[in-house]
Amino acid sequence: MEELFSVEYFMRKALDEAYAAFEKDEVPVGAIIVSKNKIIAKGHNLTQTLTDVTAHAEMQAITSAASYLGSKYLPECTLYVTLEPCVMCAGALYWSQIGKVVIGAGDEKRGFQNAGISLHPKTEIHFGILEHECSDLVREFFRAKR
Amino acid sequence: MEELFSVEYFMRKALDEAYAAFEKDEVPVGAIIVSKNKIIAKGHNLTQTLTDVTAHAEMQAITSAASYLGSKYLPECTLYVTLEPCVMCAGALYWSQIGKVVIGAGDEKRGFQNAGISLHPKTEIHFGILEHECSDLVREFFRAKR
Repeated sequence: MEELFSVEYFMRKALDEAYAAFEKDEVPVGAIIVSKNKIIAKGHNLTQTLTDVTAHAEMQAITSAASYLGSKYLPECTLYVTLEPCVMCAGALYWSQIGKVVIGAGDEKRGFQNAGISLHPKTEIHFGILEHECSDLVREFFRAKR
Repeated sequence: MEELFSVEYFMRKALDEAYAAFEKDEVPVGAIIVSKNKIIAKGHNLTQTLTDVTAHAEMQAITSAASYLGSKYLPECTLYVTLEPCVMCAGALYWSQIGKVVIGAGDEKRGFQNAGISLHPKTEIHFGILEHECSDLVREFFRAKR
């Protein structure tokens, strides 16, 4: 059993969000934001449902966390996201000055790292938490589409 | 007098949005989106007012235009924005596949070009429309802050 409040525990909560996106026929990416071991925001990709390219999981979670905290900066927060953020989301994370970003699977094609983008210098980054489950879900989604 | 529906005409509408941001003590950036010579979306920076780092002028205009058209892709649209988009907004513009982006003033420090980011290969880019008015407004804002 996973330890309570471990990185795997929180990544599984982000995966729950990704599954919710999958159920809606959205590219299955999920995100949560944690502050002091409490989940203060959740989001999953809704670009199709909302007809809005900006409705990525991370964007919604950032907006929601800032609203909850009453602060647009999130230095005490950790984002858990099942897939490596794209350039747009990395730009938003930069502006938010978020304390930590924990990523499930990498995204070679659309991820911010191969695009040469950096997050805020104060942001810690961890890769590869529940990597296979996170990437399998995306792969399964696109396989079903073909 | 400016010609109706010229790039200067539309950039002045974006500048009106930037002035609206200035009035609210927000970094004065404004954007509009035009389709078939009709303004279908407007936005100005509201990051302070909404406590949300994602509330840039361009992001709001993209969301609003997509909602108006019922399509998350904007290949027939032109964005007019008073300041060069940041990495986040450039990422959103990439996803939107917008047809054209017309920029007032460049932003050496935070603009997408110096960050090495490209828009969608199908997106035309024009720089320097009403450049001085656009940059003067930003400069005036930060001078007043010091």
